[in-house]
Amino acid sequence: MQATKKPAVILSSGGLDSTTVMAMAKQMGYALYALSFDYGQRHAFELSAAKRVARALGTRQHLVIRTDLTGIGGSALTADIAVPKHRIGGDDDSHEIPITYVPARNTIFLSYALAWAEVLGSADIFLGVNAVDYSGYPDCRPEYLEAYAKMANLATRAGVEGTTRVKIHAPLVHMTKAEIIQQGVQLDLDYGMTHSCYDPDTSGRACGACDSCTLRKKGFEEAGVKDPTQYI
Amino acid sequence: MQATKKPAVILSSGGLDSTTVMAMAKQMGYALYALSFDYGQRHAFELSAAKRVARALGTRQHLVIRTDLTGIGGSALTADIAVPKHRIGGDDDSHEIPITYVPARNTIFLSYALAWAEVLGSADIFLGVNAVDYSGYPDCRPEYLEAYAKMANLATRAGVEGTTRVKIHAPLVHMTKAEIIQQGVQLDLDYGMTHSCYDPDTSGRACGACDSCTLRKKGFEEAGVKDPTQYI
Repeated sequence: MQATKKPAVILSSGGLDSTTVMAMAKQMGYALYALSFDYGQRHAFELSAAKRVARALGTRQHLVIRTDLTGIGGSALTADIAVPKHRIGGDDDSHEIPITYVPARNTIFLSYALAWAEVLGSADIFLGVNAVDYSGYPDCRPEYLEAYAKMANLATRAGVEGTTRVKIHAPLVHMTKAEIIQQGVQLDLDYGMTHSCYDPDTSGRACGACDSCTLRKKGFEEAGVKDPTQYI
Repeated sequence: MQATKKPAVILSSGGLDSTTVMAMAKQMGYALYALSFDYGQRHAFELSAAKRVARALGTRQHLVIRTDLTGIGGSALTADIAVPKHRIGGDDDSHEIPITYVPARNTIFLSYALAWAEVLGSADIFLGVNAVDYSGYPDCRPEYLEAYAKMANLATRAGVEGTTRVKIHAPLVHMTKAEIIQQGVQLDLDYGMTHSCYDPDTSGRACGACDSCTLRKKGFEEAGVKDPTQYI
């Protein structure tokens, strides 16, 4: 008899990081429950990528939550503000919080993951946050994730009943983009199915110049891995 | 010159508790930003009440976030599970977590409030949770709210920059329903505009028998205040 796999909820954006995390959770033997958001991002290519990834990695279920962050505003990714280009590596390579930061986005996304984990009876939530490349994002830091886990264990039925202790897994938090890519290649991931660009053209090709493209390109170079991304 | 009022985000369900909290925030001199959710609750009467309340209390803005909790399931309030009746005060008056508990709901709602507060430059989030009547709900307890505030201050731009420390105000947390009603009456609140019932009829009249109605009725009785609710 095959042992029942433990369920894990994985936040999936269809990007390089969350896809690598999903492959890692699969390798660890979890049954995969992928969670994505249709939140008024400027393009739908992220969601198409998330669907490709969910199929390719054999998730048990891929839940897409529709929610509207545009009413809240405050970010170039959801509001009508220009996405900055050629920023990283130039004079503007500071540690300030970039305009592409979406206020409390990881907090919102993790809260849905927590709700779903509770319903599934899962104690394991995975997300692809990274404190190396996203040092300017407050909700990508280890101290934030620790505080989230503490709160989560007081928030839920399982926490109160003491039956399940929720763990927030962020295996990429201290890895460079090159290390992440090497990890994915080891796990036979095809990064061609992922999408990272903040500002793709109408056919979904990456701009090659936004923060996300710049980090991705540099990561493939440093990892010595051929970049499968289609750039404009 | 009139001093600029500090903005506060108030979670508003259109119910008795959150409406009282909003009146308290108004009394404290805050500019009110009301936040409600259209989350697949079984009836839309809650939202109509939230709109009436927002108008009556003179909010600066009333933002209704559409999001879909039905995909997550796990509660009688969002799934096709019967709402229990005549439970409180009977044999079943235990401290177990009721089926009307929506997994991680307060965590999800507070996360949106946190995002909006960040965009508004607000340090104050109000919600009407109560640990007396809702002792079975993990996310209505003071220790949960404290852990949430700690996490919130690590999650946001303001937290990192040290410019704003977010405070989660839950002024009703230790009050009985009767005390809440007396507080509202002191603030000239008309509770006739609020809606509490989990299972109203098609014209929005309260069932009078679900947990929420039972607590509300008992509260008016104990407060010695005439109950303006229209029951079936």
